[in-house]
Parts: sequence; C-alpha cells; structure tokens
Amino acid sequence: MTRLSGQVRIVGAGLLGTSLGLALRKQNIDVIVADTSRASQALAIDYGAGREQRESDSPGLIVVCVPPDLTADVVVAELAAYPNAIVTDVASVKQPVLNEILSSGANTENYIGSHPMAGRERGGAISGRADLFIGRPWVIVAHESSNPAATDLVTDLALDVGAVPVHMDPSEHDHAVAAVSHVPQLISSLLAARLISTSAKEISLAGQGLRDTTRIAASDPNLWAQILGANSSKIAPVLKDFAVDLANVVSALENLDKPGSLSSLSRAMDNGNRGVARIPGKHGGNHTSYAVVVAMIDDKPGELARLLTEIGQFGINLEDLKLEHSPGAQIGLVELSVLPEAETKLVSELTSRGWRLA
Amino acid sequence: MTRLSGQVRIVGAGLLGTSLGLALRKQNIDVIVADTSRASQALAIDYGAGREQRESDSPGLIVVCVPPDLTADVVVAELAAYPNAIVTDVASVKQPVLNEILSSGANTENYIGSHPMAGRERGGAISGRADLFIGRPWVIVAHESSNPAATDLVTDLALDVGAVPVHMDPSEHDHAVAAVSHVPQLISSLLAARLISTSAKEISLAGQGLRDTTRIAASDPNLWAQILGANSSKIAPVLKDFAVDLANVVSALENLDKPGSLSSLSRAMDNGNRGVARIPGKHGGNHTSYAVVVAMIDDKPGELARLLTEIGQFGINLEDLKLEHSPGAQIGLVELSVLPEAETKLVSELTSRGWRLA
Repeated sequence: MTRLSGQVRIVGAGLLGTSLGLALRKQNIDVIVADTSRASQALAIDYGAGREQRESDSPGLIVVCVPPDLTADVVVAELAAYPNAIVTDVASVKQPVLNEILSSGANTENYIGSHPMAGRERGGAISGRADLFIGRPWVIVAHESSNPAATDLVTDLALDVGAVPVHMDPSEHDHAVAAVSHVPQLISSLLAARLISTSAKEISLAGQGLRDTTRIAASDPNLWAQILGANSSKIAPVLKDFAVDLANVVSALENLDKPGSLSSLSRAMDNGNRGVARIPGKHGGNHTSYAVVVAMIDDKPGELARLLTEIGQFGINLEDLKLEHSPGAQIGLVELSVLPEAETKLVSELTSRGWRLA
Repeated sequence: MTRLSGQVRIVGAGLLGTSLGLALRKQNIDVIVADTSRASQALAIDYGAGREQRESDSPGLIVVCVPPDLTADVVVAELAAYPNAIVTDVASVKQPVLNEILSSGANTENYIGSHPMAGRERGGAISGRADLFIGRPWVIVAHESSNPAATDLVTDLALDVGAVPVHMDPSEHDHAVAAVSHVPQLISSLLAARLISTSAKEISLAGQGLRDTTRIAASDPNLWAQILGANSSKIAPVLKDFAVDLANVVSALENLDKPGSLSSLSRAMDNGNRGVARIPGKHGGNHTSYAVVVAMIDDKPGELARLLTEIGQFGINLEDLKLEHSPGAQIGLVELSVLPEAETKLVSELTSRGWRLA
C-alpha cells in the first residue's frame, strides 16, 4: 500500500532521478520523467523509470534531481509552471539552494528541500537502481515559509521508496553532511593523490587498509567540486581543524627527542579510536559489537556458497560479510560477522565440518 | 612439501608470532615459542603455535616478533645466544632497527630484516590465525653485511606460510610502507577524530564512505605511535605534501569568487582518481576492471547462501563480494564483482530466477 497517489514528476534523469523513478514505478505510482536532454529522458523511460509528460497531467509532487548548480533555477521554474504542486529537490547541500530560491521571489510555500543519503561511485541513468534508497536516511529540510503539507508529502515519498525520513533544518543538514560525507570525500581524495608518485613495486605492498581509505577517491571530480563549493562554509572549518591536528602530528614526528612527542602521536591515534566508535553500525547498533570469525575458502565457483549454505543450516544470521583480497593467491579469506552470542556455535559447527578457521 | 627443516624459534607470542607459529605447525615444522611473559607463552602454546624450548634445541632460524621498540635489543641478544642461527624480525620499519643492530657491534652477517604485510585491528595471541600470511607480500630486507643464505632461508619461511616474497633495501621498504600503510593510518585516525564532536543525529547520516575511510582508525594507539615514531623521517615529508594540498583546497573553498577556485577543487578530486587507479586489485589485476552487479536479499539466514549457490551453479566465479549496510532496514544489498565478460550472463541468469537487481 503506497502513501503517495496521483502523478509524481521527476526532473532530471541521472542516477538519482532514474533510481527514484524505478523505485516509485515498482509501487505502481504514476511517474513522469523529464530531462532537458531528450536522449537522457528516453534512456530513463526505456529503463522503466516512468513515462513522458502529457498535456493533461497535473502532478501533485515534483522532485528536482538535476546537478547542484542548476537545482535552484529548476526549482523556481517548476514552482512557476505548477503552482499547485509541492516541489522538492535532492541536492546534497541545502542552505545555499534555499537562499537562492528565497531570493528569486518565487512562492516558496510549496518548496521543501530534501536529501536522500544514497549514491554510487558511478552516475547516470544506466547506474540507476530501484533499491538505491532502501534503508538509507532521507533528510527532509523544512524552512520558515514551507507548508507543513509539503513535509508530509516528502515524508510519504521517502517511506514509499523504503528510505528512513530524518528531519533537519538547512544549516544542521549542511553541517552534518560536511562531517560525515564531504570532509571524508576530500580527505580520501587528497590521500589517494599521494599515490600518484609511488613506484609499482611500492604500491604492490598495498593492503586492505589503503583500499578502504581510498575507495571513494574514485568519485566524479566535477560533480564533487560543485558539492564542495556549495558547502564550502561548513567544510572549510572542519578541514582547518584537521590541518591543525595534522601540523601537530608532523611536529611530533620531527621532534621525537622532545618529551611528550610519542605520547602526542599516541593521543592522535586514540582520538581516532574515539571518533570511529561513534559511527552507528547496521540496524543502528554499534559497529564494534559483532564477533568476527575468519574462514578460508578456495577461490573457485561455489565455494563461498557452500560455506554460507552451511552457516544458514546452523540457523546463524550473518550481520556482515567481507571477502578479503589475497593478492597473488588463489585463496579467499571470508570475514563473517555475527552476534557475539552466535560466535561459539559458528566456530564449533564450522570446525567440525572441516572448514579452516583462524 | 615444506622448504624449511629443523627448528624455528619464535620470540614474542603476540599476533604475528602466534600466527606464524600456527602457520608453521600446520606444515608440521618444529616450532619453539618463547616470550618474556610466561602467561603469553603458555597461551600461544596452548593455542597450538609451538612448544617450549628444550636444553638440546638448536634452532636454525629465529624470528623475532616483539614490539618495534624492543626489536633491535632482542635481535642482538638472539644473535649472541645462537651464533649458528639466522635471525630475522618482523618489525614494520626496517632502517632504524638495522642501524641499531649494526651499531651494537653484533655479528650482523646472520641477521636479515623482514616484514610480512599482514595484521589485524586486534592484537594478541588470541587473535592469531594460521592463514594470516596467505597471499600477502613478505618483504625481505637484506643489507650489505648479511649472508645470502639468510635471504634464502627467510624466502623459504615466507613461501612455507603462503606469503609472496618481495625483496627491498631498508630505505626503499620504509619509504613504501610510509606511503601505503603509515600515512593512510594517520590520515584515517585524524579524520575519525573529527567525528568526536558530531551529534548523534548528525552521525546517523553516516554511510559506507565514512565507514570505509575510518575503519583502520580503530587500530591500537600505542603500537602505532611506536611504528610512526620509528619511521618519522619517511612519513613526515608525505604528510607535509598532503598538508600543502589540503591548504590549497581550503584556500579554494574560502575564495570561490576567485577564478580557478572551482577547477582547483576539481583537479584535487581528479588527482584522487589517478592515485586510486594505481592500487592493484585481487590477483594483481587492476581493481577497476570488474563488472559490479547488485542484488537485493532478505536479511535472514540462508538467503545469501541461496544467492551464491545459484551463482556457483552458473559456473561464474566471484572476484569480490560486499554486503552493504542498510541502517534501519532488514534487507541486504550484495555487490557482486565479476569479470566483465561474465556480467551479461550473471544478470540474465539472476533475473530469470527472480532475483531483484539494480
């Protein structure tokens, strides 16, 4: 049973617009897809994300899914073209978009910002997927002049595509995404950039730690330059605090003979421990609360399945699973995360069936 | 068929010493475990990592697995106590350890440094595992006065526990691990430290990117302070280059009205793209060369196994697999990485069997 009814108009057929169309179509909601690029629009429609606009259409909800630098202009145009519709957007920075819309003189009662915390390293309609929003936070950003009905409608939208609605004001939102998304993105990119000058032999020593810390450095540079630019006032102060900590570490490394240098390094690492412990894990639990069992499998079709089939037979649910890279080896290590109370049973069952464990 | 024969003496029963003992015992090699802590030694022996030293023992190879700040002293003591044995160590920084040993006046012909690129976030004998070294690089660090026989013996050790021997000189090694391990560790810790002051509501927006970039920030602060301190001369210059890039980004963010600021942000992100592309993937291939298919599964025992059983039945080998966290949802997304030529078959087979895909 869906919460939304009537037509939903999606403007912009990139990753988010297409994914949203696919998700709503799965719920049999009537979706209109529009894009200034006829080719992109046709691709998204072929993909199943919705249909073309018809003369008689009267959408009740419009979702603007265009690049951040175009968002405010498109929202203003949609508010003017559809005075009876609620208009929202999905830009990842909210205050600057709102300021631009407010200063346009548009009727902003029908506008409400939002931001689904979902994405992929690859963009475009072709990367769209109906499950993109499932279980992800969808931030809904009301403002002083927005209609409470707009909040309700976008909350329904989020729930209909399986997202978890979160309510924040624009500044709170921009501060939060600076901390959990924009700063980590920038730091990961700057870290990865240090690898450009390493030799092939040096980089051959890379392990999982380097892979994890630099994975998001593969993201789209132009899209991210726009996002970072739009949220610069929230990002720059965090980076400056980071730079102070970094300078302290460099100073400690260069003055190891001075008392307190080693303990200042240790303190920096300990602060990292404290920070990472604050990140919530799957199902909102703390991510350090699982027991981890490592099994070894031959790297051939069906081996992982055989392992997991047996685990399923014990009635043990995996909370997380990770395949470790083994450069040069035809063997895989599988990290199985389970609730602590299931660990003993998992280990004894696997061992008795001949699986190789740590 | 093992390459090593005779007795191997392991000094230090922490994670690495215990794991090495377990790995060698699996090959039926005679392993002696010694630790200044009787409790640690007993635990490692109970765990199956080896046996106590006997009066009549005459080990041909000694592996020193003690914390970095103790390594040189223990190596010197072992060289004196066992003049006919080859002595190696596993400390993660090589030049300072070698310098200390050379300046001790010990007979350094029988000493050769080494460094298995293996570890876990958790330490201690209890975290030891026999498969810790499988497929991982094991750097062997000869020096001017070391006996070529020592190189051969440690190469045999690496091969016997499934590692991939890599030969480097001390300075080359220390430079490489600064780039691929020490700098990423520090940056991850400094990034995670920024989360200490976020609110619970803000951190609830955390996604996989933040989790990946900060995972290694959970590592042991005191052990890492020692490692960083020992390799400070190689780490500090990389951090200073990072700090210059960071200052440029902050300046661009604070001067967005100046021409070129946005393109300078984009260039920083693009350099990240170039750096991450240099990291070799599984089996030495490039990590961007796999096709990724995302399937959706119910979060209950056996579902993942059922998916992977079917994939095994198609004869398709998974190159990598990742379970995505879906905070608040009882549903899992499974990223399946396969060779590009297998993608079409995987998608059509899964779709025809009713699996939900992107």
